[in-house]
Amino acid sequence: MTLADLKRENPRPREGTPAAIQALRARFGDRVLTGADVRRAHGHTTTYIPNQMPDAVVYATSEADVRDVVLVCAAHGAPIVAFGTGSSLEGHVNAPEGGISLDLSRMDKLLQVNAEDFDCTIEPGITREALNAQLRDTGLFFPIDPGANASLGGMAATRASGTNAVRYGTMRDNVIGLTVVLADGRVVRTARRAKKTAAGYDLTRLMVGSEGTLGIITQLNLRLQGIPEAILSGVCPFPDVDSACRTVIQTIQAGIPVARIELLDALAISAAIAYSKIDLPHSPCLFVELHGSEAGVAEQAEFFGMIAAENGGGTLAVATRAEERAQLWKARHDFYWASLTLRPGAKAIATDVCVPISQLADCIAQTQADADEAGLIAPIVGHVGDGNFHVTLLIDTDVPDEIDRAEDFIARLSRRALHFDGTCTGEHGIGQGKRGYLTDELGEAVNVMRQIKQTLDPQNILNPGKIFSPV
Amino acid sequence: MTLADLKRENPRPREGTPAAIQALRARFGDRVLTGADVRRAHGHTTTYIPNQMPDAVVYATSEADVRDVVLVCAAHGAPIVAFGTGSSLEGHVNAPEGGISLDLSRMDKLLQVNAEDFDCTIEPGITREALNAQLRDTGLFFPIDPGANASLGGMAATRASGTNAVRYGTMRDNVIGLTVVLADGRVVRTARRAKKTAAGYDLTRLMVGSEGTLGIITQLNLRLQGIPEAILSGVCPFPDVDSACRTVIQTIQAGIPVARIELLDALAISAAIAYSKIDLPHSPCLFVELHGSEAGVAEQAEFFGMIAAENGGGTLAVATRAEERAQLWKARHDFYWASLTLRPGAKAIATDVCVPISQLADCIAQTQADADEAGLIAPIVGHVGDGNFHVTLLIDTDVPDEIDRAEDFIARLSRRALHFDGTCTGEHGIGQGKRGYLTDELGEAVNVMRQIKQTLDPQNILNPGKIFSPV
Repeated sequence: MTLADLKRENPRPREGTPAAIQALRARFGDRVLTGADVRRAHGHTTTYIPNQMPDAVVYATSEADVRDVVLVCAAHGAPIVAFGTGSSLEGHVNAPEGGISLDLSRMDKLLQVNAEDFDCTIEPGITREALNAQLRDTGLFFPIDPGANASLGGMAATRASGTNAVRYGTMRDNVIGLTVVLADGRVVRTARRAKKTAAGYDLTRLMVGSEGTLGIITQLNLRLQGIPEAILSGVCPFPDVDSACRTVIQTIQAGIPVARIELLDALAISAAIAYSKIDLPHSPCLFVELHGSEAGVAEQAEFFGMIAAENGGGTLAVATRAEERAQLWKARHDFYWASLTLRPGAKAIATDVCVPISQLADCIAQTQADADEAGLIAPIVGHVGDGNFHVTLLIDTDVPDEIDRAEDFIARLSRRALHFDGTCTGEHGIGQGKRGYLTDELGEAVNVMRQIKQTLDPQNILNPGKIFSPV
Repeated sequence: MTLADLKRENPRPREGTPAAIQALRARFGDRVLTGADVRRAHGHTTTYIPNQMPDAVVYATSEADVRDVVLVCAAHGAPIVAFGTGSSLEGHVNAPEGGISLDLSRMDKLLQVNAEDFDCTIEPGITREALNAQLRDTGLFFPIDPGANASLGGMAATRASGTNAVRYGTMRDNVIGLTVVLADGRVVRTARRAKKTAAGYDLTRLMVGSEGTLGIITQLNLRLQGIPEAILSGVCPFPDVDSACRTVIQTIQAGIPVARIELLDALAISAAIAYSKIDLPHSPCLFVELHGSEAGVAEQAEFFGMIAAENGGGTLAVATRAEERAQLWKARHDFYWASLTLRPGAKAIATDVCVPISQLADCIAQTQADADEAGLIAPIVGHVGDGNFHVTLLIDTDVPDEIDRAEDFIARLSRRALHFDGTCTGEHGIGQGKRGYLTDELGEAVNVMRQIKQTLDPQNILNPGKIFSPV
């Protein structure tokens, strides 16, 4: 596939797919769907790349189903694109070579909770919110929160993280083990249920973040956390991004175990005010959340307030009641929708990079200046405790020149992140859009990834056209 | 190599090794050593497997050196065994097929500290204690503490952890990125310096724990932690292992962020008293360490004390002064030497397993009963917050029957850990001794590991005879 193919629908259909669909119909009957609507819904993308539909959608309800789909597709050389909720941001569920979208959303059971061990076993299609709703009575929760109500299988496959990662880590840190169906139909369990292990290569971490290109996840064993006794959320305004970033660095240096610490720049705050009707000053803000005992979070809040004040920040406006807290984080999580108010009718394209936190303020300042110069509306929000930030570009995707300018901007943003020894994506993944930047970032290491891909999926049937640039 | 080969010295020399040594002499001169003493020191093992010496030792002082050694060995098909301090516990530095021991201990520089980013870049030969001594003025420290003063490269290669892992994680969690020389001489950097990334396959985690079989680590970028404001250590006695384990589970459920929580069973305590002249009751004890603010650790200690009392534990004897604390943890870390007092003249063979914490008390009780029945002296110490425990077998390795009984015991211990859905090694690694159990534990997944090994090291020159059983 060439880079130009990215802009086309279904640019590279594979010969074997029709025969695979016929065989799947014999096995799955009306769980094989080929209507345009359902296919389009499974190939959507949130990027400027057009919808590249699969040729059919199959709904799996068991590991045996997944294995059968893989064996049929392997026999015919047909692509398989695993699908959870479709909330990924770099075109992961697009099907540039057609084939089968393997929908796992009906495999959504919480299979086992081991409360004493702080872990649970789930099917891949269960969503983050459904999991936490079902866990509530146990006093435990699963902390990773990418904003969208994504499926856990998808979150593992894309190594998702989000607002809580500064405290609880990413999917990398919170998956104990996986069951995976490989491209040749073998079913492997990557680890037992022990909290740690030194037994052989870390296949769990190899699968987490492999974006459906090495295997289809059919079961996950996840670490859980105790629901904190007390939660305190608040918003603190700053005169500029630099003082907010300095506050974040000093907060972490001081050992304050913030559960979330999120930056919204002035433009992002304006959008949040307009969309969420939330009472905020029109300047960059940090949204903060603290977890601990009642006394602990109060002490943390006081300490944070002192650091913020030293850096010129305003008072931490604390949302004490659960509803106020929910409203605050809803405003943060609704940012995608809020950003659309900045340019009605435009499409919001979210991209992300991550840099060492000491470089964050500089990287954001240069990025804001770049957007101004390029005439792009580009509000910034960020998981600043991790050095990770998102730029949301409001563009009219019907205007080729706007797409070109957005692409050029994203290319410069990626190069800038690499210049600061960061990564071209902190949490969205490579997917289709960032394949070229991956090579810029890791060089020869990408060829090692290719060797592993070639070894485990020699026909390239698992999510082709993702992660790796055309050779 | 067959299992019987394990018991022999240099069972499988490789043809190409003499020519490789000749070529290395031309390149490295007197940094190539072939005397028996230095070779023996590099092939030693702490297991019942005899010393299997390399044919030569080469001291590397740069990445270019490492690359040259690898290229020479690749050209001649000679084995390369990376060597740090030789403190690994499963025969990782033994050379069953002879070849070159590549000693990295002279590559011991702290290259860069990024204090604001809580990370540092080091060469692989620097030891844990040397690193922390050099970091002291920065207010930061590297938390992973396996007991031995191991090299960081070796700790990464074996996915080491130890007493602090319950709070700070293992090497898996604390390596940001690596530079690695592959079997064909390619040099790859696995990740940039950002705290998190979603850019492609997680080669960092693939290399961590690969035991020198996939590449030679030449540089590490590590996460650091702030030195806590206050540290509180103490010892708490319990009537039995079960009540100690219940205390650990409840402590973690209560969200007390213990930095260390270590179990010594009654036999281990007797050894510690005899060797370290430490004042302890003759019953199972938990050694505890708490990190935080002054008020924070006091609150944590009080809370822990309540939980311990509810489970029949005694009073937490707090070591407030730094010297008392050091003495306490020295007693814990000297356990290996202390165990030798239980049977003067015997060799101490340490093995480890890790199980879900809810299964820990049962697994330990069955293991103690098994040791009694087998007539083995087998004190138990454990990183119980992680469900990880060590059994140290005091045996006379000159008596074949004792070795057989130890092997049988370890086999039963591994099966028991798997029965409880645990792992045959929580932190020591597979090395030579646990290769068979790896297959018991992960089945088909081991073949996936083999495929990756075969792809990246088709000549099997990197640490042959480790991790994988003979096919």
